[in-house]
Amino acid sequence: MKKLKYGQVGGGVGAFIGPVHRAAVSLTGKAELVAGCFSSDHERNIESAKKLGIDPSRVYRTFEEMAEKEAKREDKIDFVSIVVPNYLHFEVAKSFLENGINVVCDKPLTLEIKDAFELVNLVKSTNLEFMVTYTYIGYSMIKKAKEIIKSGEIGKVKFVVAEYPQEWLLNKRTIGEGTSWRLKKEYMGVSSSVGDIGAHIESLVSFLTDLKVKRILAKLSCFIHPEKLDDNAFIILEYDSGAVGNYWTSQIASGNKNALKLRIYGTEGSIEWEQEKPNRLILNKIGEPTKILFRGRETSSKLINSNLTLPMGHPEGFVEAFANLYSSFIEVLLNKKLGKPHPEKNFPDVLDGARGVTFVHTCVESSQRGSIWIDFPKID
Amino acid sequence: MKKLKYGQVGGGVGAFIGPVHRAAVSLTGKAELVAGCFSSDHERNIESAKKLGIDPSRVYRTFEEMAEKEAKREDKIDFVSIVVPNYLHFEVAKSFLENGINVVCDKPLTLEIKDAFELVNLVKSTNLEFMVTYTYIGYSMIKKAKEIIKSGEIGKVKFVVAEYPQEWLLNKRTIGEGTSWRLKKEYMGVSSSVGDIGAHIESLVSFLTDLKVKRILAKLSCFIHPEKLDDNAFIILEYDSGAVGNYWTSQIASGNKNALKLRIYGTEGSIEWEQEKPNRLILNKIGEPTKILFRGRETSSKLINSNLTLPMGHPEGFVEAFANLYSSFIEVLLNKKLGKPHPEKNFPDVLDGARGVTFVHTCVESSQRGSIWIDFPKID
Amino acid sequence: MKKLKYGQVGGGVGAFIGPVHRAAVSLTGKAELVAGCFSSDHERNIESAKKLGIDPSRVYRTFEEMAEKEAKREDKIDFVSIVVPNYLHFEVAKSFLENGINVVCDKPLTLEIKDAFELVNLVKSTNLEFMVTYTYIGYSMIKKAKEIIKSGEIGKVKFVVAEYPQEWLLNKRTIGEGTSWRLKKEYMGVSSSVGDIGAHIESLVSFLTDLKVKRILAKLSCFIHPEKLDDNAFIILEYDSGAVGNYWTSQIASGNKNALKLRIYGTEGSIEWEQEKPNRLILNKIGEPTKILFRGRETSSKLINSNLTLPMGHPEGFVEAFANLYSSFIEVLLNKKLGKPHPEKNFPDVLDGARGVTFVHTCVESSQRGSIWIDFPKID
Amino acid sequence: MKKLKYGQVGGGVGAFIGPVHRAAVSLTGKAELVAGCFSSDHERNIESAKKLGIDPSRVYRTFEEMAEKEAKREDKIDFVSIVVPNYLHFEVAKSFLENGINVVCDKPLTLEIKDAFELVNLVKSTNLEFMVTYTYIGYSMIKKAKEIIKSGEIGKVKFVVAEYPQEWLLNKRTIGEGTSWRLKKEYMGVSSSVGDIGAHIESLVSFLTDLKVKRILAKLSCFIHPEKLDDNAFIILEYDSGAVGNYWTSQIASGNKNALKLRIYGTEGSIEWEQEKPNRLILNKIGEPTKILFRGRETSSKLINSNLTLPMGHPEGFVEAFANLYSSFIEVLLNKKLGKPHPEKNFPDVLDGARGVTFVHTCVESSQRGSIWIDFPKID
Repeated sequence: MKKLKYGQVGGGVGAFIGPVHRAAVSLTGKAELVAGCFSSDHERNIESAKKLGIDPSRVYRTFEEMAEKEAKREDKIDFVSIVVPNYLHFEVAKSFLENGINVVCDKPLTLEIKDAFELVNLVKSTNLEFMVTYTYIGYSMIKKAKEIIKSGEIGKVKFVVAEYPQEWLLNKRTIGEGTSWRLKKEYMGVSSSVGDIGAHIESLVSFLTDLKVKRILAKLSCFIHPEKLDDNAFIILEYDSGAVGNYWTSQIASGNKNALKLRIYGTEGSIEWEQEKPNRLILNKIGEPTKILFRGRETSSKLINSNLTLPMGHPEGFVEAFANLYSSFIEVLLNKKLGKPHPEKNFPDVLDGARGVTFVHTCVESSQRGSIWIDFPKID
Repeated sequence: MKKLKYGQVGGGVGAFIGPVHRAAVSLTGKAELVAGCFSSDHERNIESAKKLGIDPSRVYRTFEEMAEKEAKREDKIDFVSIVVPNYLHFEVAKSFLENGINVVCDKPLTLEIKDAFELVNLVKSTNLEFMVTYTYIGYSMIKKAKEIIKSGEIGKVKFVVAEYPQEWLLNKRTIGEGTSWRLKKEYMGVSSSVGDIGAHIESLVSFLTDLKVKRILAKLSCFIHPEKLDDNAFIILEYDSGAVGNYWTSQIASGNKNALKLRIYGTEGSIEWEQEKPNRLILNKIGEPTKILFRGRETSSKLINSNLTLPMGHPEGFVEAFANLYSSFIEVLLNKKLGKPHPEKNFPDVLDGARGVTFVHTCVESSQRGSIWIDFPKID
Repeated sequence: MKKLKYGQVGGGVGAFIGPVHRAAVSLTGKAELVAGCFSSDHERNIESAKKLGIDPSRVYRTFEEMAEKEAKREDKIDFVSIVVPNYLHFEVAKSFLENGINVVCDKPLTLEIKDAFELVNLVKSTNLEFMVTYTYIGYSMIKKAKEIIKSGEIGKVKFVVAEYPQEWLLNKRTIGEGTSWRLKKEYMGVSSSVGDIGAHIESLVSFLTDLKVKRILAKLSCFIHPEKLDDNAFIILEYDSGAVGNYWTSQIASGNKNALKLRIYGTEGSIEWEQEKPNRLILNKIGEPTKILFRGRETSSKLINSNLTLPMGHPEGFVEAFANLYSSFIEVLLNKKLGKPHPEKNFPDVLDGARGVTFVHTCVESSQRGSIWIDFPKID
Repeated sequence: MKKLKYGQVGGGVGAFIGPVHRAAVSLTGKAELVAGCFSSDHERNIESAKKLGIDPSRVYRTFEEMAEKEAKREDKIDFVSIVVPNYLHFEVAKSFLENGINVVCDKPLTLEIKDAFELVNLVKSTNLEFMVTYTYIGYSMIKKAKEIIKSGEIGKVKFVVAEYPQEWLLNKRTIGEGTSWRLKKEYMGVSSSVGDIGAHIESLVSFLTDLKVKRILAKLSCFIHPEKLDDNAFIILEYDSGAVGNYWTSQIASGNKNALKLRIYGTEGSIEWEQEKPNRLILNKIGEPTKILFRGRETSSKLINSNLTLPMGHPEGFVEAFANLYSSFIEVLLNKKLGKPHPEKNFPDVLDGARGVTFVHTCVESSQRGSIWIDFPKID
């Protein structure tokens, strides 16, 4: 069982998410980094490659060059990990797909809806594999929550209350070089808080409940964002089933570090999960005491398919969530190579990515038009 | 310093809130119960009066009789405590005001807006004192939170996120005789969850921040309420200052007992408080560690004016909150008797009550008209 | 059903625990204060009595006078509530017992072991009722915990870990006039932290588990106590059953307000309770998720016999715990008056008090002799 | 900057801690696994090596063979990671030291005191580097806590309360093949709970406070351990400075997964940290509100020297703690190679390991001799 080979676009010295992707792949033990174009600044690219021990012959000046040249190698990369700023996701992903290379792309998939669906079509026509790294879907307790909801333990889902407040934008001191592009409209697209973090809520609720959004009503506000993008948003949703939802995102909510929290209420009980306490799940059922479930105690190992399974009470964190995603993705590639049937898909794919982009645009449109209901298109 | 005398309408054997009012007055040590009409069922009325040690001559068959006869006594009650079902608040309160007796009335003030303002006018014209028992305003840490916000420590308030989920309606077994009237439309008026608990949020946010509501947009849902009143509501608000708010109420949110939670975000920090952990306040300020403030430790006793001041770590609860309200109200009456100037008003009055009724109706109207913005009238 | 009458010794203006006792009796609705000797300083005595509305003819200069004169009245008090400094408990309690009056006495029962057993014998010979107010035994969730342990749900108890850290002594500013006597050796006896708060642990563990202490080993320390009494203590215990325990008390543990916490471990599960979150109980059983039980949700009302039963999520606090104790005590007196059989005793009595005093002395002796094991006498 | 090379002894298929060590090294990005003897069962050894992609020429049948042969290679490993059962630590570590290879050894260092000091002497005489992986010392917030204590913010440390309860031994179903050796006396030595988890407490307290243990008194119990080793222990300590400590370890405390908790109390404040909430630190100072410090928010990156620095609110867990240790160790090796001065040592070394072994034996001796004080030797 040989390791797969992968390359990375973006993620040079000083970046935040690139190293997380690499650490996550390391944790799976299933793939190794062999090629890259780590920065558009070639010196930084070279420096990063050196630190990562990449063979100079596989360090590329542009992502186009990388896609083309790798595609021609016999020992070409099995997939590329795209960790460039958001506005470049589309072009880079498109380039690798067109060169026949599987893609892992950081979220959001693209800035524009039409670009997202161009990638959807490209994936369909090429039959390649594509993962969008909605990180939090990788947490073991999210898998457990999905199992519980699917089993009917909490009955039929009737309403969802989800929030994702952060404070970093309020505190100017926390805006370092590595994150300053997050403030640029040209890099972030039409939305800041909904685009950057609201999309995580949408992907998680969709993954956990299979609810289909029917229409959306949103009130986006800009209190301090330098480019007048939303830094706070209140969103109300109706789903096809008649269930309703309330999402809140903020980048200026003092005291909140990365406080994603999901509460899903059914006719028989509820599920609650917090990203900053990821090893824990709260389960309530009518007429029973509140139950706290812990990773490694109330979960079996089949939920987690990274190489690493820590016993209960030994906290898994953000990188493990990423590793679980990568592990699922790599398993699919390995099975494909061996001609084996796919295991059940366990990661967000290009369609999930496109739905996320649509979600962001729909929220923005509703808010701009006075917080009216906007119908959400069917995506499948 | 003699104790004041008071009477009660409602609160007979088996009721929930009546005994809480009486216990609260006991805790203040400032007034004693001497008269009452505890039930429209006269046998239950008599039985209740006996248990409470009320002189039979001051046990009345109807509230009208009580208001009239008490008004004529030389040793008449100083105030009446009204704890009848909501739909009777208006008539009973009106009757006592018209007979020149100060009123404490459980919330909501009335079911209809016009009734509420009739009471407002009656209070103005009679110059009587009127308290609406929005309980949670009585908690010491709510007073502390108000002080902090007023001092400017968290800057200018920009958004408010408040929630009040309960589960009791989901669990049919928890609906006893004492609460079954809560399910009747004729007793509850146009709304269930917004009317019963949403009004608490409105009163608290108003008390803490002095924000004036400008317009409201709401999505009320009825999932299981037997009379098709709302059992879940998502509400978005704009305030005059440009700040925005998001309130959530639910009576069918499994796992939530009485989980009122307030988060108020300013330009320099934030305040967070939970009713089920009432002795605690979370304070965040930009660039500083999260701080936890505790009643009796980070509060001085001047915030609390009930007779009872427990040291830190000795939990005060729901009854103490009530007692603090009553204590403030009684202080005003005592000062009035002595011709002394009023201390700063520290309890919700008839205007607060009328604003609450307006809030409930505005939410219902918005939801019925498709979750559109409804302007909120100026109330002062 | 007429209210009982009671008197109080101690508890004058400015005191902490006296008003708590009175508020607790008020909450029960079952007795009224009619007599007292509130302070040895007669002016303060008079002033306190006036504020409390006591008839001047029943305000006494000394407790001896009060005991004697009340005993001779036809409408004499049914019981006395003793809230004087600890060193006076013995004399005052003895005096009332000798005059045939039932006693409620704040803890500790006495400072000396022989005095404690003199009271035990006096109670036996007079057949009077005697309650020592180990407050925390009054909490509803402590009753629930006792039920669970008794039912065998957590198996056979094997070890107990209990702690009661406070910080007040560390912070000189928190030592007001009302508490300064707590620093005096002549008032507090041989121990500070074990005597004042360790005794609570002993009473709770005994109430919950029925474990009998076999021998004790203790390491008391004095870091800042002005009279060189212990301000921190580590205690190891063996019980008759072979179970073991570890108790920790501190009055100088920064950050701890009144952080009593009990953890009781059995062969099949465990129970955990914290005084600052008194409405909650944590239950673990082998192979099951952690369960959180809440007052009013996982308890039936029969556990609580005060007059006031708040629904779930409406926090009960310190005063309610006291009220539950008083309510149980008064029920016993009422039944006795009516010649009815006693309901199951549900409060700490004079024997519990004597065992507590013995516990404190045993800890001190062990520590003074170099932390050696000291056998604990059988007490029953 | 080339990666270092390392080998591993133990850690074959199905093991718990071996893969954690490997994942941790991966996360540092600073070393790669090139050799190993993963199991004494050679088939399992081969299978493990294959999965890890080790060149067959560097897969060894015995650790002695590995130590000798690696020592002779030009491209020999820079260090060995020893993750065999505890009873083999000594021999394996000795063998590699004698062959001139730096060692990382899982804790405990050895089972016997004399063996531990033989390794101490060997390290001194060879001038090799030696790390004992007391994992928890690697957590960022432990480094932060050390900084705070060192700065004097909480004053002079006066007492320490530490606990490490687990439940796994109570629940027979949690004892899989991978952990069954933990129940064997021949593998675990003289102690189970103190040896396996108590030693972590000792190392952490020592790291954080620099307190030197003066004497120890312990009460070890065996309730269900199949080989009659302690499964619960209460330990009281005196330190040279006059400070005192109380440690509790248990492997049968229902509800506790891996609930290591440290509380350190000084004359001016206190520090509290819990392993299951590792990103958080609680700081109390006299007269100030309780403060909660978070990794990434109240810490600078210099505290963490692994390659991966996650922003606040993105939880780091157990593997990151390990990675931080390895990163510190590898930095020392790299500097040594380059002839650069050592950065400040930031990991537990052989002396820390020897002190830990001594601690375990001292606790056992005290308990066996009736819980008497046993003097603790000076170790430095």
